[in-house]
Amino acid sequence: MSVVVSLNRDSGRRASLDMVNALVAADLGRVNQLILKRMDSNVALIPQLAGHIIAAGGKRLRPTLTLAAARLCGYKGERHIALAACVEFIHTATLLHDDVVDESDLRRGLATANNVWGNQASVLVGDFLFARAFQLMVEDGSLEVLDILSSASAQIAEGEVAQLTTANNTETSESAYLEVIRGKTATLFAAACRVGSVVAGRPQAQEEALDNYGLNLGIAFQLVDDVLDYSASQAELGKSVGDDFREGKITLPIILAYRRGNDEERAFWRRTMEDMEQSEDDLSRAIELLGKHETLNDTIERARHYGAIARDALGIFPKTDVKSALIDVVDFSIERAY
Amino acid sequence: MSVVVSLNRDSGRRASLDMVNALVAADLGRVNQLILKRMDSNVALIPQLAGHIIAAGGKRLRPTLTLAAARLCGYKGERHIALAACVEFIHTATLLHDDVVDESDLRRGLATANNVWGNQASVLVGDFLFARAFQLMVEDGSLEVLDILSSASAQIAEGEVAQLTTANNTETSESAYLEVIRGKTATLFAAACRVGSVVAGRPQAQEEALDNYGLNLGIAFQLVDDVLDYSASQAELGKSVGDDFREGKITLPIILAYRRGNDEERAFWRRTMEDMEQSEDDLSRAIELLGKHETLNDTIERARHYGAIARDALGIFPKTDVKSALIDVVDFSIERAY
Repeated sequence: MSVVVSLNRDSGRRASLDMVNALVAADLGRVNQLILKRMDSNVALIPQLAGHIIAAGGKRLRPTLTLAAARLCGYKGERHIALAACVEFIHTATLLHDDVVDESDLRRGLATANNVWGNQASVLVGDFLFARAFQLMVEDGSLEVLDILSSASAQIAEGEVAQLTTANNTETSESAYLEVIRGKTATLFAAACRVGSVVAGRPQAQEEALDNYGLNLGIAFQLVDDVLDYSASQAELGKSVGDDFREGKITLPIILAYRRGNDEERAFWRRTMEDMEQSEDDLSRAIELLGKHETLNDTIERARHYGAIARDALGIFPKTDVKSALIDVVDFSIERAY
Repeated sequence: MSVVVSLNRDSGRRASLDMVNALVAADLGRVNQLILKRMDSNVALIPQLAGHIIAAGGKRLRPTLTLAAARLCGYKGERHIALAACVEFIHTATLLHDDVVDESDLRRGLATANNVWGNQASVLVGDFLFARAFQLMVEDGSLEVLDILSSASAQIAEGEVAQLTTANNTETSESAYLEVIRGKTATLFAAACRVGSVVAGRPQAQEEALDNYGLNLGIAFQLVDDVLDYSASQAELGKSVGDDFREGKITLPIILAYRRGNDEERAFWRRTMEDMEQSEDDLSRAIELLGKHETLNDTIERARHYGAIARDALGIFPKTDVKSALIDVVDFSIERAY
C-alpha cells in the first residue's frame, strides 16, 4: 500500500547529499581510516562486530556534518578528522545498544544485528566504542569538546529511556514525543555540528547557530524517518514497511491519527500498539487510517517547519558552497519522504 | 557442601575493611550525596533503576579506594569527592551492562536485576551513568583524569568481551584468564587508586605505585570471588553457591581442575561447562573435583601472590594509618575466602 504525498517545493531540482559528500570526500576518507585504526583491539570480536556495523552504517551523515561545519567555519587544521570519528563511534555505540532486545521482543520475533553475536556482545562492543570516543577526545585535548559530547551522550541516553517509557503508550503527546526524538536523534546532530565550529575557534554566536542547525535538522530527519517506515519508498529501498508498527513504537503519524480518530479507531490503535495484538491485515488498516487523517503528510509538514528553522540558523554565515551544501542536507532530509 | 581451606596468616588478627571505612566515612557520605544528586534526571526511570542498583551496591569499595589513595597522598582539597563518584558511576554502569542477558541465558533460567526492568532499560541507564561520569570529569577539568578513566573504560569493555570469548571454553589458559580479570576487574581498581594520587599532584612514582597496588589488589579480589562462588562461606552470606558453574563461566578453579584432571574428569567439565548439559548432582561432583585437585586452595595461593605485590607497591609511602588501612584491604580481600 503506498501513500501519496504532494510535493510543493519552489524549484524542480531534487536535493541530494551529493554536494556535501563531494566537499568532505577527502576528509571523510581520512575519518574512515582513523575509524578502522582505532576500533582495533587484541580482542578479535571487537573489530569483527564493530566493523560489521560500521561498514553497514552507510551515509556517515553525522561525521559529515562535523567535517562540513568545520569547513563552513573556515577551519584549516586537522582536529576535525578525529572528532568526526568520535561522533561516528558514539553513533555506532548507540546503534549497537539499540539492537539489544528483551525477551518480550524475541517472543514477538523481533531481532536485529545482534542475532549474529547476541545482546551481550552488542552491549560490550558498544561500550568499547563509547570509551574509545572519549579517548580520542582526550587526545584532542579540548575540555569544551569533551563537555559537548559527554552532555550529548547523557541526553541521548535520557531520550532513549524516555522512549522506553512512551513505548506502547497511545496517549503519548506530540510534545513528549518531540522530547524523545530531540534526545535520541537531534542532540547528536547538534553536537556533531557544534564540534566543527569549536575546533575552528569561532565566536559563540556561530557555535550556537550550528548547534541550532543540527538540532532542527535532526528533528526533521527523525520525523521523516518515522514517515518512511509507513511509506512505499521505504520498500523500494529494500527495507520493510511497518517495522515501527510491529514493534508498537509510537511515532508522530500514530500520535496524530490516535488524536484525530474516532472511538473505534482508537480501540484499534490500543489493541495493536498497546496490547500488541496484531493480525495480518492490521498494518494495511493502520496505513489506511494514517491516510484518512493525512498524518503522514502532516508529519512531513512538521518536519518542514524544523527544516526551515535549520536553514535560517545558517543565515549568519556568508553564502558559500559549504553553506549551500548544508542547506541541501536539510532539503534532502525532507524530500526523501517522497 | 563445604570446602576446607587452611589458614596460614602470620597474625591471629582478622583483617577487615573497618579501618579504611572509618578513615573515609565523612568523605564517603559526601560521595553518596553527590551520587544521588547527579544520577537524577527528568526521565523518572533513570533515578529509579540507578537508585536500585546503587543502593544495593553495598561496599563502595572502588570509590573508597579513590578517597583513601587521595588521603594517602596527603590531599586536602575537594576534587576526590566528585572523582570517587565517577568511579562508582562507571562501576555501576558495568554492573548494569553485565546484567544484560541473551536468549540462551533465558533458556537456562538465568536472569538478574534486569528481570524487573528488562535488558533495554539496563543498557540505557548504564549508558546514562557512564556519560554522567564523563560529565563529572569534565567539570573537574583534568585531562589526565579523563585519560585514566576513558582508557580504563575501554580496557574494561575489552576484558568483558574477552570473557565472552573464553566463556564455555575449558581450554582457556591461566594467562588468558588473567588477561580477562585484569580487564574486567583490576583495571578499574587501578584507575580508582591512581586518580586519588593525581588530584594530589604527586610524582609519577607514587601514581604508579597506587596504580600497581590497585591492579594487583583487583586481581586478588577477583580470584577470591571466583573461589567464593564454590565455597560454603558464600552460602553464609546469603548468596547461592555454584552460579558460575551453572553459567558455564570458566574461572581459575575450573581451569586448574581441567588441566590436572584425567580423561573422564575432562569429559565431565566439557559436558557441564561447554555443552552446558548439567544434571542435579553435577555441582556436587564439580566441587568434589575442585577439592580433589586442591584448586580452590591454589587459586587462593595465586591471590596471595598478587596480594603480596599490592602490599609491596605501597612500600614507597611512609607508614601511616591510611597505609595500614590500605594493606588491611588487601588482607581482607584474601581472608574473606575462609
